[in-house]
Amino acid sequence: MKKSLGPIILAYPMPVWVIGTYGGDGKPNAATAAAGMVCCRKPPCIAVSFREATYTYRNLKERQAFTVNIPSESHIKETDYFGIATGRREDKFAATGLSPIPSSLVDAPYVGEFPIVFECKLIHTLELGSHTQFIGEILDVKVDEEVLGEKGFPNLKKLKPLVYDIGHATYYGIGEFLGKAFSIGQGIIRP
Amino acid sequence: MKKSLGPIILAYPMPVWVIGTYGGDGKPNAATAAAGMVCCRKPPCIAVSFREATYTYRNLKERQAFTVNIPSESHIKETDYFGIATGRREDKFAATGLSPIPSSLVDAPYVGEFPIVFECKLIHTLELGSHTQFIGEILDVKVDEEVLGEKGFPNLKKLKPLVYDIGHATYYGIGEFLGKAFSIGQGIIRP
Repeated sequence: MKKSLGPIILAYPMPVWVIGTYGGDGKPNAATAAAGMVCCRKPPCIAVSFREATYTYRNLKERQAFTVNIPSESHIKETDYFGIATGRREDKFAATGLSPIPSSLVDAPYVGEFPIVFECKLIHTLELGSHTQFIGEILDVKVDEEVLGEKGFPNLKKLKPLVYDIGHATYYGIGEFLGKAFSIGQGIIRP
Repeated sequence: MKKSLGPIILAYPMPVWVIGTYGGDGKPNAATAAAGMVCCRKPPCIAVSFREATYTYRNLKERQAFTVNIPSESHIKETDYFGIATGRREDKFAATGLSPIPSSLVDAPYVGEFPIVFECKLIHTLELGSHTQFIGEILDVKVDEEVLGEKGFPNLKKLKPLVYDIGHATYYGIGEFLGKAFSIGQGIIRP
């Protein structure tokens, strides 16, 4: 039996990403977001949403660039802090001791210690209501070599990205391998 | 040391959602997508991306409505099949034996056996290139009572949503509880 919860935002799994931008004074900032997706293959695009009241919203509008940084479990505290504090009042990189690395491709910093970084040029801005969706074209993906797997892509069990539970405001890890896509459903296709 | 992988789409974690639509002939269809996010709180919005060549793309344009259905691990085979087969040639609900339930709120069917359903009215369509992003306003969220937790929201360990690894085209489960958000990072805030 299904219960109606009304028109609310819930989604499972939600990502835990850290968005890197420069403030008007050139101060590097990092802000945590659970609203994000890859949304196009050609050009490769990634989308994130922010409220107008945030420091990151202003930085995105002014600099037209951002990075998406995927943290590992080992940086869960810093990641949570990036979602609590505001860059208007705090220097979040200084507070955490993490390293703001200037991107050579876009006008935004990335988090040196996080294992995956997307360098993005803002190409679309969509005002939706309480939130604005920012879509960036991915100019490069940089990955720590120690999290790469055999095929040259990140190995999820080495990467250990966080999963966000929006209903309970909690973080989870990645679980067990369950199956191969485009494969385990083949049995259902009728001859 | 970071290695450059070039401008490609990768993201961790990615969701595994099944999008419900009606075809031109009224045939209910279900298609799997790993490109999706919640993107606004007021109005509550959810976004998904599809290529123009897909059956779902045409259905979304014609019916201006869709459902987002979150499968549990127990339906991994049907979910994979929904991403392999095309509704142009197959009746996917008939092939899987799953139940297309007509939404009473929008012109789209949902998967009766999946534990969470979002009923969405299409409000924005954004052509990005190879993919088009469709943004729906969530009119209701319906959840199976057996996956609800103490606070009235889904319990992730009961829900068991899938996580997609796009680099290796594989599915993973949800792992262990790691911490409370807006909490474990408090220690970094300077007094």
